[in-house]
Amino acid sequence: MNQKELATFLNLSQTTVSRALAGYADVSEETKRLVLKTALEHGYRPNSSARRLVTGKAGSIGVVFPMERNLIVDPHFLEVLAGLSEALGEVGTDILLTPTIAAREIDTYDRLAREGAVDGIIIVGTKVEDERVEHLAKLDFPFVTHGRTKRGSEHAYLDIDNEGGFRRATELLLDLGHEKIGLINGQPDRNYADDRLVGYRKALEGRHLNFEPSLVVAAPMTVEKGYQAARAFLSQTVKPTAIVCGSTVVAIGVMQALRENGLDIGKDISIVAHDDGLSTVRADLSSLPLTTTFSPVQAAGKRIAQMLLDRIGGEAVTALQEIWPVDLIVRTSTGKV
Amino acid sequence: MNQKELATFLNLSQTTVSRALAGYADVSEETKRLVLKTALEHGYRPNSSARRLVTGKAGSIGVVFPMERNLIVDPHFLEVLAGLSEALGEVGTDILLTPTIAAREIDTYDRLAREGAVDGIIIVGTKVEDERVEHLAKLDFPFVTHGRTKRGSEHAYLDIDNEGGFRRATELLLDLGHEKIGLINGQPDRNYADDRLVGYRKALEGRHLNFEPSLVVAAPMTVEKGYQAARAFLSQTVKPTAIVCGSTVVAIGVMQALRENGLDIGKDISIVAHDDGLSTVRADLSSLPLTTTFSPVQAAGKRIAQMLLDRIGGEAVTALQEIWPVDLIVRTSTGKV
Repeated sequence: MNQKELATFLNLSQTTVSRALAGYADVSEETKRLVLKTALEHGYRPNSSARRLVTGKAGSIGVVFPMERNLIVDPHFLEVLAGLSEALGEVGTDILLTPTIAAREIDTYDRLAREGAVDGIIIVGTKVEDERVEHLAKLDFPFVTHGRTKRGSEHAYLDIDNEGGFRRATELLLDLGHEKIGLINGQPDRNYADDRLVGYRKALEGRHLNFEPSLVVAAPMTVEKGYQAARAFLSQTVKPTAIVCGSTVVAIGVMQALRENGLDIGKDISIVAHDDGLSTVRADLSSLPLTTTFSPVQAAGKRIAQMLLDRIGGEAVTALQEIWPVDLIVRTSTGKV
Repeated sequence: MNQKELATFLNLSQTTVSRALAGYADVSEETKRLVLKTALEHGYRPNSSARRLVTGKAGSIGVVFPMERNLIVDPHFLEVLAGLSEALGEVGTDILLTPTIAAREIDTYDRLAREGAVDGIIIVGTKVEDERVEHLAKLDFPFVTHGRTKRGSEHAYLDIDNEGGFRRATELLLDLGHEKIGLINGQPDRNYADDRLVGYRKALEGRHLNFEPSLVVAAPMTVEKGYQAARAFLSQTVKPTAIVCGSTVVAIGVMQALRENGLDIGKDISIVAHDDGLSTVRADLSSLPLTTTFSPVQAAGKRIAQMLLDRIGGEAVTALQEIWPVDLIVRTSTGKV
């Protein structure tokens, strides 16, 4: 049923139907509701589709998440999403969340770009070498990544100084006299994990200390993995006197394992964790206030959305590359050896 | 530029262009990329818009979130979203997240229904009287609510037995000898908070105990509000010996305040919190394992998505109404008076 048939069916003028569907204030609420209800009943979906064909704009930006990684229950991802929604809500732009399985991830990006359901894409959590970045760059489709990549095409990104932050965290522990420092890091193909390992190693090198592979764990950032890693540390020959945790979620599991072993955190063993200021996992209101590395995640999400809108507007990728500093906040989970 | 002009521009047949844009396997990757890139450069966005006009289906479902409520950093909301994505990912349906401010909430629902950008809508967090429910019901637009409403139209919903769960939690504390039981509840216009208050009061009535208004707080479910509410409880004349918390997030703040006052949780004062099994706020791996009320949130999200797909497919609303039970899990945060 087209708009003309809809008008005939309702015994209304085509102008009235058109204005009702567009939501004009000069059409009564009752008429608007009748027109919309009838349109929906007859499968007539006018505005967004027609507008897209005319303007070529979808009015939304896309975020793909691989279901296996369970990004959506990752507090960092959520804070990014909150920031995105803050910036996009102001300009009436929606977020199209597209669930996918990892094996079909590239196809999903391809479909989003091809179908025009979104005007641009945000890639969350870059890898050292990232196929998604290469694919979208080849298509010349607007996108911004949260995190950098090490090899491949020039692209728009916002990243934090993971190397500097983890170097400073490690140096704090070295200053406190720790020499056996554990690192519970993210998976090695993730760019942030790669940068953090570099920062950790540089801090050790700066004090002429050897890198000890048994003190570094690479795992998904979950409570369970933190718990397991800390237990493993305590059972091995080279035991750490301090642990740098890739996330406060990991730190929850670590603290649990240390307490089960009767260790007093901040005295018997020290902990530093990334990140501070997350709404759901509050480092300052943890059972023990945590020393943390910190860069505001929600603000980064907001900025990424603005950068993507600029990119869609034609801004050059080289003008859309930002690295934010990482602060160190010292609380009571760290102490002298 | 239409498809024919695109074909002429690229010196390809219209069939090839059409098949390339549709992603058929018989077109080479190189050609597909060239066609898509050129189409994008010329603002030609074919598939989703055209498909929507032809089929009347958007291939996505809508979730509106009022930015002020910061739903997106609420762990319950996130678990629901994870469940939705699990079910929708399987059938290739996207989630359109639409940020809005509360003052424009109804307009936003109206726009979603009118523009056809989504095939159905999920309303998260119902109120006792819910204007959004009434509006969508009048439009006869497919929707499912997470939570019931008390007055108004018949509609599709999935809810949990909040009344029964909080009644059992309160009864557990009564069985342990507590008579002054605090309740840190959600805001009173929320249907779940209303149900929980009923359950709490029924438990007291069952033991012929008077309802004491100063022992009930209604507030947004945040760490800070939990902290403030617990401090207020400890400073008032009628002090609770046990506290029922509306969420484990609230419980984090409550535990902090109790510890600052030198109270030993589970001995000097008891705590029960809703909910268990959240990925980010783990009640079992909390600094003190928490006694909780529990209903699986992610599974509920998954089921809600399936119900909405059924509703879009024409299933009657009365066949799409489910109330899930709430379990009580007893750990070490509760003890005798």
